[in-house]
Amino acid sequence: MFQRILVANRGEIALRIIRACKELGVQVVAVYSEADRNAPYLKLADRAICIGKAPSADSYLNIPRLIAAAEVADVQAIHPGYGFLSENPHFAEICRSCNFEFIGPPHESIRKMGLKTEAKTVAAAAQVACVPGSDGPISSNAEALTLARSIGYPVLIKAAAGGGGKGMRVCRDEESLIPALQGARNEAEAAFKNSSVYLEKFIDRPRHVEVQILADTHGNIVHCWDRDCSLQRRHQKLVEEAPASLPLEVRIKLGEAAVRLAKAAGYVNAGTCEFLVDADNNFYFIEVNARIQVEHPVTEMVTGIDLVKQQILIASGEPLPFTQEQIVTRGHAMEVRINSEDPDHDFRPSPGKITMLNVPGGPGVRWDSHVEVGYSVPPNYDSLVGKLIVHAPSRLEAIATMRRALDELVIEGIQTTIPLHRRIFRNRDFIEGRVDTTWVERVLMPEKGRPSSS
Amino acid sequence: MFQRILVANRGEIALRIIRACKELGVQVVAVYSEADRNAPYLKLADRAICIGKAPSADSYLNIPRLIAAAEVADVQAIHPGYGFLSENPHFAEICRSCNFEFIGPPHESIRKMGLKTEAKTVAAAAQVACVPGSDGPISSNAEALTLARSIGYPVLIKAAAGGGGKGMRVCRDEESLIPALQGARNEAEAAFKNSSVYLEKFIDRPRHVEVQILADTHGNIVHCWDRDCSLQRRHQKLVEEAPASLPLEVRIKLGEAAVRLAKAAGYVNAGTCEFLVDADNNFYFIEVNARIQVEHPVTEMVTGIDLVKQQILIASGEPLPFTQEQIVTRGHAMEVRINSEDPDHDFRPSPGKITMLNVPGGPGVRWDSHVEVGYSVPPNYDSLVGKLIVHAPSRLEAIATMRRALDELVIEGIQTTIPLHRRIFRNRDFIEGRVDTTWVERVLMPEKGRPSSS
Repeated sequence: MFQRILVANRGEIALRIIRACKELGVQVVAVYSEADRNAPYLKLADRAICIGKAPSADSYLNIPRLIAAAEVADVQAIHPGYGFLSENPHFAEICRSCNFEFIGPPHESIRKMGLKTEAKTVAAAAQVACVPGSDGPISSNAEALTLARSIGYPVLIKAAAGGGGKGMRVCRDEESLIPALQGARNEAEAAFKNSSVYLEKFIDRPRHVEVQILADTHGNIVHCWDRDCSLQRRHQKLVEEAPASLPLEVRIKLGEAAVRLAKAAGYVNAGTCEFLVDADNNFYFIEVNARIQVEHPVTEMVTGIDLVKQQILIASGEPLPFTQEQIVTRGHAMEVRINSEDPDHDFRPSPGKITMLNVPGGPGVRWDSHVEVGYSVPPNYDSLVGKLIVHAPSRLEAIATMRRALDELVIEGIQTTIPLHRRIFRNRDFIEGRVDTTWVERVLMPEKGRPSSS
Repeated sequence: MFQRILVANRGEIALRIIRACKELGVQVVAVYSEADRNAPYLKLADRAICIGKAPSADSYLNIPRLIAAAEVADVQAIHPGYGFLSENPHFAEICRSCNFEFIGPPHESIRKMGLKTEAKTVAAAAQVACVPGSDGPISSNAEALTLARSIGYPVLIKAAAGGGGKGMRVCRDEESLIPALQGARNEAEAAFKNSSVYLEKFIDRPRHVEVQILADTHGNIVHCWDRDCSLQRRHQKLVEEAPASLPLEVRIKLGEAAVRLAKAAGYVNAGTCEFLVDADNNFYFIEVNARIQVEHPVTEMVTGIDLVKQQILIASGEPLPFTQEQIVTRGHAMEVRINSEDPDHDFRPSPGKITMLNVPGGPGVRWDSHVEVGYSVPPNYDSLVGKLIVHAPSRLEAIATMRRALDELVIEGIQTTIPLHRRIFRNRDFIEGRVDTTWVERVLMPEKGRPSSS
């Protein structure tokens, strides 16, 4: 096992990794930008190293500074968390070339799965269905027109290197295809410095279901069952749950498909295979997230497996301590993301000082957050201030627990998405499971003057 | 199901019951003494009613005022929590005679099990071994001398109506028996207005293991497995865990014995059968606690069953929603009691205002507490300010989780038992399970100038 690990991230996932290290008896080194110098979790690390100014390019995305911090702190491994450099194959490669174990997949796997077009090739090899579409990036408008006609409208245009909804367009007819393509390319270029886009069949009102994978360095690959993350707004997940409300035979097939995919990709460590599920429970692979995910706690609650500890154990060469048969889900877990955003004003960021905080407790409640009273949420980074997670014997009981936990949760000094979640958890459609990835924008909060994305 | 429930208690258990009611969609009425008028949990109740002055006799123990509050608030049931009137058969009977369901056992069962001598008669009928001793209260010194000689020294003198170590004496030889008897009688009279004592064989360095029972009004009785509560100081539990570290066959026998006892007693609702376990894993029934217990969360964590919700459902006439076979423990849970006491100064109470509070979070951590920043712990009641509970796949992992959670927990403004727990969770004896009910006083903190109780 490693003696010392560096956490190349910030906020709640930095605290999450610090907690895992402490429980494993591994020393932990945190890094921070000048904007995060007063972050409370830094006190919990064995050491904290400033790596630069607030802009991420000067700190959390700055590979030379991260490597220098790792050298100075004499760590054996680096945990990238999520976001930032977590899916950057170049960073993973540099870490390893500097003799720091990168706590994540081999950089070849990250590279392969990070490019969606490559990922689809792997899926085909693993006999996992993808959404029908282009085999690779679209090279010309003419190719796009021909392909769209063959698979049928509506079609979806997606950035090859994308994520978070950037460079994505739904196109319902031939007239709008070329302008949509151009728009998506421009957005993709701006966001990822890569204007490649591809085209696929648009699945109407799908559910987003994903499978958690764990693979060790000894060839053992298991899935930890599924999560439903359909509740999204502009492709940002708001609520996640486990297990997905699907027939068991579909869930078993999903899990098996994810394991085949991971095997075909030579995958190691924790990862997630994301699928779209249509109204008939057909599922289509969309992408692999080659890292721990924000919503990993719902899987932890139902399986009893600490995924972040497993990431570290896998990276240190330990074999998985369980077989597929031993991974059994119990009950139902749900997570809401509490963001420092104002849902009444188009979710504009609401940084600022937290003047009051009351954390819910009691049975079935977990709170993952790096904020405390007196902490100032900086304006520089993503707006996640906490994740409220509940676990109960059934989905309906989990909803009841979440409702009462949301009623107990008080955060003052900033605007948050708490009121939105209180609304969601009292909504009949949501309670009865009649939601899909378009539901928030289509039903819960249709935006006036803004064309719906579906 | 009830429309409205009154909580006849205060502090963390009042909040615990409020949470259960909210999750069940039942309205909840809190009561409070003048000393508790600013208790934060009152805000979470649908209604809060002042029932009198700070002394418990004027409020939480005042039956007419509680009944009046129940009348005024128009509730259908009363939850007594633990302590106060929870095991008072007279209160249970009055509640029911006023047409309020008492959320607990029939008053006949409470009466029967509350008198330890009666409880032993029930145990004998259920063929559950008790510690050898007097069949009932000791009527004379001569009887005590004869009996002690026949069962052999050391012997234990216990108050018949007792609890919490009051009216209890260990006696190691014949010379000290009569003075010890008199001391125990005086203490019992002062504490319980009942000087009856009984005598039993003293089990050296036993473990305290208890079994959680659930019984519905339809004749279904199940056990929810066991808890080890051996870590005690002066008969006050400090740390509790589930399951007990005993061979499975012993645990199965314990559970079956507890179910037989509950059946023989005509028991309904949640209860606990307490046993002493000797070094050879022989177990001896000591008493039934006819109420929910402080340490109930460790059972909730490993079984996934919400015991307080089950209490309410049972009282409303619902059948148990599971069979014995469906009650399976997963992993290991531990609870520490955080008291406003100063462990460096003989655990003297440390009431006062909480100026800073940081609650631990992350995987496997549960916090049950009624306190918030700015809340003043009143000097009038017991000193429990919170329960920190952890759950992990194994006992060693639970210890690691508790250690890191205790390191995160910050309470300022009052002295607490947090430093003591940090010591316990780093102690080799404790980690390796080599503890018994005498260990804290014998090994961890032997008291100079005070004779050890064993």
